[in-house]
Amino acid sequence: MFELKVVTSNPGKAIEIIAALGKAGIKAAHVHMKYPEIRADTFEEVVKASIAHLKGTGLDEFILDDSGLDVRSLNGFPGVYSAYVFKTIGCEGILRLLSGSRDRHAEFVSVIGGFVKGKEVMVTGSTKGVITVSQKGTFGFGYDPIFMPDGEKRTFAEMQTEQKNAISHRGKAVAAFTEWYRSQ
Amino acid sequence: MFELKVVTSNPGKAIEIIAALGKAGIKAAHVHMKYPEIRADTFEEVVKASIAHLKGTGLDEFILDDSGLDVRSLNGFPGVYSAYVFKTIGCEGILRLLSGSRDRHAEFVSVIGGFVKGKEVMVTGSTKGVITVSQKGTFGFGYDPIFMPDGEKRTFAEMQTEQKNAISHRGKAVAAFTEWYRSQ
Repeated sequence: MFELKVVTSNPGKAIEIIAALGKAGIKAAHVHMKYPEIRADTFEEVVKASIAHLKGTGLDEFILDDSGLDVRSLNGFPGVYSAYVFKTIGCEGILRLLSGSRDRHAEFVSVIGGFVKGKEVMVTGSTKGVITVSQKGTFGFGYDPIFMPDGEKRTFAEMQTEQKNAISHRGKAVAAFTEWYRSQ
Repeated sequence: MFELKVVTSNPGKAIEIIAALGKAGIKAAHVHMKYPEIRADTFEEVVKASIAHLKGTGLDEFILDDSGLDVRSLNGFPGVYSAYVFKTIGCEGILRLLSGSRDRHAEFVSVIGGFVKGKEVMVTGSTKGVITVSQKGTFGFGYDPIFMPDGEKRTFAEMQTEQKNAISHRGKAVAAFTEWYRSQ
């Protein structure tokens, strides 16, 4: 039976994407795989290069996600290097960089791309919010405990997967992908 | 006449490398060029991939440098992403992350690699020091104003190129390259 492959080494991403696709009736499976990524200034460039790389390995019918957090007063940091920055200085590092800062605006961005039904596809989702003054919640992954979406009183880490998917950057990207998928 | 090409989009790096090579009697010229770099956990991986890429463009007799600052108490941050981190949060960001920190140890690392005399070469230089509590000096580039090498009372940014090269990570990497070059 057909299964769309969700290629990522991040189990948190896989859970969210597969749950959102499942809700839309698209069966997907996690392929746990680390692939080389380029250093680029945009998520789109990274995804484009990653699609090309994975196509070259013979994989077909796959999607992947490059995503991150852009903090406005930090000139977009950690941006495309969110994963690396998380591994080194973590949420505490971001809080420290923003200590005393009035401008706490941030945006989570997810670019989902892949090679599906013989075509390259790339879609984007983003969610605006603020960086909290301390960590809250234990769900999700990455910067979820310090990101509170606009109009919400909970951080992403205080939401179950389904709740987060309903408003998150990644949930929106999957929704855009689903729409494209159905139009094919 | 033969000239070794120093490929980088960073004029500061070019100046230091060409000065150090010149002192050793190796004539070199700056090729100002941005090339795609991979996201990797080590400078060596980045350099290896960059050499392969540049060889693929038909360039020969070239060297390049991937370098960065590893701050111990920040788990090696900004490390391989030093340039990106500098562009976004700068020296001030590093100082902020270390505010109140007792452990201010850091290490500058330079990996120089290339394709010279028909062979791939890769050498490393590193210099240990501490992150100062404020910026000092106007020479050099990047994190030079906040890095004071062990045994020195000046930051890298308070040293002229020749002084910095005598003790810097990059100066040491060029010295190692020079030694290899002469042995060929």
